[in-house]
Formats: sequence, structure tokens, C-alpha cells
Amino acid sequence: MGIVVQKYGGSSVADAAGIKRVARRIVATKQAGNDVVVVVSAMGDTTDELIDLANEVSPNPPGRELDMLLTAGERISMAVLAMAIGELGQKARSFTGSQAGVITDAEHGRAKIIDVTPGRVQEAIANGDVAIVAGFQGVSQTTKDITTLGRGGSDTTAVALAVALKADVCEIYSDVDGIFTADPRIVPAARQIPRISYEETLEMAANGAKILHLRCVEYARRYDMPIHVRSSFSDKEGTWVVRAEDVLKDETMEQAIISGVAHDRSEAKVTVVGVPDKVGEAAAIFGTLAAAQINLDMIVQNVSATDTNLTDISFTLPRADGRTATAALTKAQGDIGFERLQYNDSIGKVSIIGAGMRSAPGISAKFFAALADAGVNIEMISTSEIRISVVVAEEQVDAAVRAAHEAFNLDADEVQAVVYGGTGR
Amino acid sequence: MGIVVQKYGGSSVADAAGIKRVARRIVATKQAGNDVVVVVSAMGDTTDELIDLANEVSPNPPGRELDMLLTAGERISMAVLAMAIGELGQKARSFTGSQAGVITDAEHGRAKIIDVTPGRVQEAIANGDVAIVAGFQGVSQTTKDITTLGRGGSDTTAVALAVALKADVCEIYSDVDGIFTADPRIVPAARQIPRISYEETLEMAANGAKILHLRCVEYARRYDMPIHVRSSFSDKEGTWVVRAEDVLKDETMEQAIISGVAHDRSEAKVTVVGVPDKVGEAAAIFGTLAAAQINLDMIVQNVSATDTNLTDISFTLPRADGRTATAALTKAQGDIGFERLQYNDSIGKVSIIGAGMRSAPGISAKFFAALADAGVNIEMISTSEIRISVVVAEEQVDAAVRAAHEAFNLDADEVQAVVYGGTGR
Repeated sequence: MGIVVQKYGGSSVADAAGIKRVARRIVATKQAGNDVVVVVSAMGDTTDELIDLANEVSPNPPGRELDMLLTAGERISMAVLAMAIGELGQKARSFTGSQAGVITDAEHGRAKIIDVTPGRVQEAIANGDVAIVAGFQGVSQTTKDITTLGRGGSDTTAVALAVALKADVCEIYSDVDGIFTADPRIVPAARQIPRISYEETLEMAANGAKILHLRCVEYARRYDMPIHVRSSFSDKEGTWVVRAEDVLKDETMEQAIISGVAHDRSEAKVTVVGVPDKVGEAAAIFGTLAAAQINLDMIVQNVSATDTNLTDISFTLPRADGRTATAALTKAQGDIGFERLQYNDSIGKVSIIGAGMRSAPGISAKFFAALADAGVNIEMISTSEIRISVVVAEEQVDAAVRAAHEAFNLDADEVQAVVYGGTGR
Repeated sequence: MGIVVQKYGGSSVADAAGIKRVARRIVATKQAGNDVVVVVSAMGDTTDELIDLANEVSPNPPGRELDMLLTAGERISMAVLAMAIGELGQKARSFTGSQAGVITDAEHGRAKIIDVTPGRVQEAIANGDVAIVAGFQGVSQTTKDITTLGRGGSDTTAVALAVALKADVCEIYSDVDGIFTADPRIVPAARQIPRISYEETLEMAANGAKILHLRCVEYARRYDMPIHVRSSFSDKEGTWVVRAEDVLKDETMEQAIISGVAHDRSEAKVTVVGVPDKVGEAAAIFGTLAAAQINLDMIVQNVSATDTNLTDISFTLPRADGRTATAALTKAQGDIGFERLQYNDSIGKVSIIGAGMRSAPGISAKFFAALADAGVNIEMISTSEIRISVVVAEEQVDAAVRAAHEAFNLDADEVQAVVYGGTGR
């Protein structure tokens, strides 16, 4: 008997039937002897509909009011879910983020959780009730205004509550069975991963895998809270995200060299051509981009061509920021002194991720050879301790993912690691 | 320069266009030099849609959760309205009932306001902002749970806030121009009333007029807060609801004998036939009904027929309670000892209302003669100091309203008093 926190995404509670199905699962968990705290997202497309409504009156609504509006979405789903649980004979009480003690900073639309004081939630479960908490929202410590946490917010709410309540596990439900070795839509032979480390999951999330959000995994890793990623449409075990040393608990498993293949089609590439190869040039370029609030991903500087003393610097960034970035650089062209900009938004990034990479030589050679055999041209390369990423033409992403997946035997019988799913909040 | 509280009903903010229209009116009021506090209902049919959603998962949802659900409606309208005002260059901040300090008891679905502590609203208007407050909702003083005020709740929120803020006036906007001498759908010659007393308005609201709710008028009368009932679709002056002594401020006006004609088709009539004419019988009957939580309206006991020593007792009640009431009485028939029940839900009530009635003799004679001339049969009669009501067959309601309206010269040039409109919250 312990505390289980369950988070259900919008696709799991899209309509009354979905809410009733989720209610049965919650009651079953409670009847199995657990205290149950549920974090819920807005039903189906509610959030998008509310944003559309806002845009009908205001192209760029104030953050405070947009947060007030959007939080109506979870308010609806949590109250209806509490009613559905009540119909099954189990008392349930819903709580807004504010009532559940989710205290944040005042950054509307992307607030950070700074404290969780779940006194009312604890009272409810001590009373034998199921507590339902609105995901994605909190209340500002300073202004007392209602805030939203931004992308991945409901997952983060669930992990933060699980930590504050000292729960045994945080279960994240969606419409997929867990984390896969690759997107099954690209690689039909992709396998579900039974266990994976926080670190590998973070690399996957940062490199295009959409099933868990970075913030939620970071929070879980910091406080060592096990996450169980599973489907609300089946009773199958999903994927456990745990400490690296706990991945191998299952004695039949060997350390996989590569856990999974992630891909990302959301970025664009900018090349700054003809940069004078002297001190301070890179600082000038990236200072300009930082001032424009651009988040960069990969950065590569080519070796200077000796005859010209000019170099090229390439970087990737979210496509949505492409225009802002090139405009900022163009404006600073005179000061920085580069020749021209190349902008390409028909690129994709393919990454292989695996904790076993640390101790195995020749991984990059094998990866690049597989890509070459598949006719895939590599445009940029970047690596971390447990990841190798390449930028390729967008239309070659699928071929690159399949080539990597096969080269590292991921569709073989040893089950390993990642990646796909919808974008939750 | 003073404080103006404006309340907009669901029909005024039914869509983005309506919200923008209301926003322009609010900004104009602010630019005229007033501090403006706005109370808003849920958009159009939102509340009904949320109730439908609740009923998809639960036929009889718990009050706490239903209130949590329904309050999402005003949360949406107030945030979008604040955005629309912002688009016009005027800063606006929205507040939930709880944030605006609307403190209630814990009776979910029909909570009563027990205190209003509008500190955050005062801060906002002191800062030059327009404050938008969610109508219909508050927070329980004891449980800290979110409550709703029930029918007429948004009007009551507006009046209560106006009182707490010491506003100059509480403007109640809907899609009608004010209070009329009769429902214009029945009496095309009905006139809009410029001024009417709280007492007459209360009698009208209690007898079928739907433009203002009883609770809101009672609250305004208790604290002497002028209400200005008007249309959000025009700039015309509406109807002022004020103290009786202020009705005649306009020197050109004479005290009207009858201010208006109200009607009500929502009731049913029960006759308890053959009740032994002895002490305690009425107490037994009405005790039974009280135990079943039935709210009665008119009660009439006929004179006992001397030969049988039996009497008949009739009463009216909301049609929705008809089944419960007859079931409760039938169950108690043995104890009470009546002969049988007659139930009729094809009735209507027609009332003439006027403060001038106090000092004018012959009003009831004139009323009944007009009904007789129109061929309308009277089934029950009940009176108060400023009202005479009759129960007639439902299909004769229109004829009775027209006959009364004409008999008291309400379609003449002296403009007088009441009644129609949608049901707000």
C-alpha cells in the first residue's frame, strides 16, 4: 500500500467514454489498496479551441489572461472525471493547481514550479478519497495570479506532486504503450523498451522523441522518482524510466549499446558563410542570437580555409525562430563582418542514444557507414557522451532512422529503447 | 467620477463579436471618467453544454464537482473579455469569484453570499485597470471549495460587488431594453418603464417576470443600490430600479396605480379534496410538503361545506415539483385523511402589480371585471399589499394579460411598469 500518482493526457480523456474508461482504471488502482492522486490534462482539443477563441478577439493576448482562459480546460476535465469516479461508488475530489499547492514563478505561459504544498491533496487521500489535480497550472507565489507551465506541463505537475507526496511511482498515461526503440510509424519492427535510464530518456526527449518532456524527466531524475510510461487503452506494462543503475535489475538483460533512435523534423539550419577567422567573431554572432531570445541546438564551426582566412559557422534552431534569427544576424552583418547567410529548413536530425556507447568503441563509424550504405548524406554532426546526432536532408530522415535501427540490431530480440507520440501538456 | 459596476449576461457575450461589442461599451464607460468593474456570465449556452457533459458521465453529479465544472464557463468569458478590452488599449484584469473576495456558505449550487472582500478588485481599479469578475461563483468560507450561487447568481454577484465597492450604480445588461409593463410578445403595446420601486420589482420577479432575479433585487433593496436594467445592444436608457420615494423624482410623472402585468406559466395546481374540517389538518398537509422540500406559492382554502364538514385546500407549486408533492401526499393519505388529489399543470398565473394599489379602492373589482369580459375564468385568487394574482387556464393567460393591460390603461401615454426576458444567471 502506497501512493500512486497517475497522469492522463488529453487523448485519454477526449470524451465521456474516455473519461469513464479512465475512471474505471483509477478505481481499480484504488481498490488494489493504493492511495491514488490523478493529474489530468484538458479534454482532447479543448486547449486549441480556447486558443482559437482568444485569437478571435486578440492576436497576441496578455499572458495573465491567456493563462486564466486555458486553465478552464483542466477545470472541466478534472470535475467531470471526479463525477465519473463518483458514479463508480468511489468518492473523488478535484483540485485546481492552486488548491493543490502548485506554487510557481510569475512567468505566464511558461511558469516554473518553485514549491508544492499539497496539504489539501493529502487530506483528501487520508480521507479515503481519490484526489484529482488539474495539470499544467499553478499559482504565482508573488502575484497570486493563475499561471500555466507550458509544454509538458501536466507531466511535470504529476512528477512534482509525486515527489512532494513521496509517491511510489508516477504513471504517465497516453495513447501509446511506452517508449520505443524508434518511431513505429517509420520502423515497423521497433520494440517497446521495458526499462530505460533518466539520462537516455532526456537525450531522447531533447532530440525529437515526444512521449515525455524534458522538464518532467529532469524533475524525476533530480528527485529519483520512477516514471512508468503506459497506455490508458490497455493493461500492459509500459516503459519504466529509472536510475541508470536500476535499468539492469532484470538479470536476463544485457546492457544495450544503443537504446534507441530518435529523430526530429522541427529544426532549421543556418550557415554563416565567410566569417573572419579571428577572436570574438563567434561571440558576436551568438551574442546577437541570444539577444534575440533564440534557443540554439547544434553548433558547428568548420576549419578555416587557410588561403582566405575565412570560416563558416553553422547552427540549428527551431524552424519557428528561423526568420527572427536571420533578421537579427542580417541587421548585425556590418558589425560582425560575415559574407552571407544560408538558411535551410528542409533538414532533419537523427540521433542514436545509448548509455552503453561510453564503453564501446567504433559506434560512430558503424553509424556513419550505415548511413552511407543507405545513400544518406551527412550535413552536420554533434555528439554527447551517450548520443551521436547527424543532420540530414529532411526527405532522408526515414531512411536514416531505419538504417541506424537495423545497424544496431534494434529490431532483433534484445529489447531496447525509444521514441514517438503526441505532444502532451 | 465614480465606480460603475456593469453586469453582462450570457446573451450579450455569446460569441467573439458580442464580446468585442461589450468591450467597446466598457472602454467608453471608462473613458467617460468612471472606474469600471464588470461582472460577466458564461458565454451563450456554455453552462448548458457543461451540464450536458456532466450528465454524460453522471445522472446526479456531486454538487462540489458540478460547481467546479460550471465555474469554468465564467472563467472563459471573463478572460476573453479582458483580452478584448486590452485590444482596445485599455488594461483589464480578470478575477474569479474567489479572487474577487466573494465569500459564500458551502451550499453547492445555491450558495449564499456572506461577505464580499474585494481587495484585489480595488487594487486593480486604483491602478487604472478595468476589473472583470466572474459572476455566479464564490468560495466557501468553511471548506474553501468553489461554489455557485444558483439562478440569478451573476446579477446577485454584481449587486453585492457594487455594494461592497460603494458604486454609484449597478448596471444589468441583457438583450432587452429594460422592464416593460407586460411581456411585449403578448402585449405589443407594452411600454418600457423608466423608474420602478424595489418592492414592485420584487413582486414582478416573484410572479413570473424574468428580467431580474428576486435575490438580486432583495440585495439591492437592503443596501439601497440603484439598478439600471438596460440592453447591451443599444445606448438607450433602460429601467431604473430604485427606492419607492425616488420613483417620483421625475416631476412630470404621476403615481401609477398599476405599474405592470406579470405572468407565469411555470406552476401547477394541486387540490386536496375532502379534507376533514378540523384543527391540525392544514398543518399535516403542509408539514408533509415541507418535509419533501417543496416550495409552495399560492395557498387557498375553501369555506367548508356545512353538510359534509369537509373542505378543499388548493395550492400552486413549480411544475418540476409536482410529482414529488403528489407522491408525498399520497403516501400520507391515511394519516391525513383526505379523499383524493387533483393535479393540474395546465394553469397560468396572471398578476397586476402597483404601489398605487394601496390607496386606490376598486382595483380588484376592475381586474376581475376585465377578465370576465374577456371570457377568462378565475380558478384561484391571492393578494398582497401591492399585487393581485389570479390562476387561470394556461391557454387563457395571454387573453388575461391583454385584458388587464388594457383595463388599467397601461398602453396609454402614461408610461409605467414590467416584465419579460430570458433566464440569466
